Amino acid sequence: MLGMLIWANACAAADDPLPSWNDGTTKQQIQGFVKKITTTGSSDFVEPAKRIAVFDNDGTLWAEQPAYFEFFFALDQVKAMSPQHPEWKTTEPFKSALAGDMKGLAASGEKGILELVAVTHSGMTTDEFARNVSQWVSTARHPKTQRPFTEMVYQPMLELLHYLRDNGFKTYIVSGGGQDFMRAWVPAVYGIPPEQIVGSQGELKYELRNGTPVMVKLPKVALIDDGPGKPVGIQRVIGVKPIFAFGNSDGDQQMLEWTASGDGARFAGLVHHTDAAREWAYDRQSKIGKLDKALDEANAKGWTVVDMKKDWKVVYPSEKP
Amino acid sequence: MLGMLIWANACAAADDPLPSWNDGTTKQQIQGFVKKITTTGSSDFVEPAKRIAVFDNDGTLWAEQPAYFEFFFALDQVKAMSPQHPEWKTTEPFKSALAGDMKGLAASGEKGILELVAVTHSGMTTDEFARNVSQWVSTARHPKTQRPFTEMVYQPMLELLHYLRDNGFKTYIVSGGGQDFMRAWVPAVYGIPPEQIVGSQGELKYELRNGTPVMVKLPKVALIDDGPGKPVGIQRVIGVKPIFAFGNSDGDQQMLEWTASGDGARFAGLVHHTDAAREWAYDRQSKIGKLDKALDEANAKGWTVVDMKKDWKVVYPSEKP
Repeated sequence: MLGMLIWANACAAADDPLPSWNDGTTKQQIQGFVKKITTTGSSDFVEPAKRIAVFDNDGTLWAEQPAYFEFFFALDQVKAMSPQHPEWKTTEPFKSALAGDMKGLAASGEKGILELVAVTHSGMTTDEFARNVSQWVSTARHPKTQRPFTEMVYQPMLELLHYLRDNGFKTYIVSGGGQDFMRAWVPAVYGIPPEQIVGSQGELKYELRNGTPVMVKLPKVALIDDGPGKPVGIQRVIGVKPIFAFGNSDGDQQMLEWTASGDGARFAGLVHHTDAAREWAYDRQSKIGKLDKALDEANAKGWTVVDMKKDWKVVYPSEKP
Repeated sequence: MLGMLIWANACAAADDPLPSWNDGTTKQQIQGFVKKITTTGSSDFVEPAKRIAVFDNDGTLWAEQPAYFEFFFALDQVKAMSPQHPEWKTTEPFKSALAGDMKGLAASGEKGILELVAVTHSGMTTDEFARNVSQWVSTARHPKTQRPFTEMVYQPMLELLHYLRDNGFKTYIVSGGGQDFMRAWVPAVYGIPPEQIVGSQGELKYELRNGTPVMVKLPKVALIDDGPGKPVGIQRVIGVKPIFAFGNSDGDQQMLEWTASGDGARFAGLVHHTDAAREWAYDRQSKIGKLDKALDEANAKGWTVVDMKKDWKVVYPSEKP
């Protein structure tokens, strides 16, 4: 009898496309939306070609504390490049970066950070940069958990990506992170191909080197894909308004507004970081992933807000039973 | 017996995925390439996710004489907008544009043309612009043939797009034409969705108008998707190197080079306009769609060159038997 019960429960779990989500309002809202837009004959039915879903990355699909993971990449690249730059030992922001002096780095301000990003994200070809990122992703470890950064993705969100794709959605990343940075690891980790990754972009230059075409990354910003830049990135790359969007911070507010403003059924969701024990707890006062105005708008407009502590059975794939 | 023969021929034709292409080297090269990269176990096999094909538009998928069709759109828009701009009656390039004085327009040079493009392609929302284009496409007629511009697409190339998609390819447009201009009519005409249309782009601004989000087209160029800008557009939107590319002019040279430079089997093709009777004949000396350096490179590297007169049974869909 007990055996039968266990077997029946296992079957129910196997049928659940979102097994890492606790039953409750959030899960119901997600599944209810997908069900109504995929039901033929429903007044909310959306044809498959228009089932476009967009996801922020940092803080929505993987963690972003104590700093954006791409920032750790930049620091590690500065270290790797430092033998060719002896002058960095005495000039900021490189001196602080090499010493791991976060306070000194903070003192260099936004200008200092942009300088670190520029030297580590430009001056090489797109192929060389992709190799740098791939190598880093396969060896770097998170300073707190000591785990590869790509293992700090959210299991419930991986399941949501699969669930949407199984229901005919095209899933996109729309992130403030570097587009070329994400393209080097996102396809393998999230199952999202390069052409469905939208991010911040630098100017590029096509040139022939000994007859071989290369694409050189220039130290000039073409698009900051954050805040009001997210709908711009969506328009440039996708060209249609998504019907489903998920973010976690004020940087996602305009993407959610833009998505929610279309005709017919729309889904706008926010991941609220409420779990200090398993992940981090932060919102209105945080320097990274600040969630303040977007949370107010979500509450006012009835957008779905994920309570990480309450809604997620597990956070990371390693916690799966 | 005769009946049997007709029936057999009809069946052979029905089995031919490229019925508007005459048998010969060009057709063999196209089909040979598709066959080898789709044959499981072949050393040239390419997995479906990497079957990316890019097509120029003007002169490759539709005609481009006596001027780029988007230029006729700009002229018609100037006329439509002129009641709100009485000053245009006396200021160039608008005066010549309104009078249909092509010589006067030419005298205003590149600066004049850019001014016409700016006033007709910016200052409105993306939705308003899309409506303008849709309306124009449904009413405008080509000055020589008096047919809708969307009927001046090339039947053999439509078949090629279908054939590639039937073989697992994702087909993209990569054109010097305006991205937003193309997105308004390309999906219905070529079966290519908005997210697979890459073109020249202007800067965009997201804003709220009475609480409703809109995207405003600004009079500032973000990307000229022509010449060396084509591989840049490919990198920005697609992020992977295509394995198949088709163009018709020197503006496509770098796109073909970039495509041909990857590992494994690659296809680079050019449409050569050789048919003065059914379409137009032009190449090295033409102001529109000049084909000179790219033709030399095609000959040197063994790229496929379509001889329109010889290779195409019909040019436009209306000529189909």
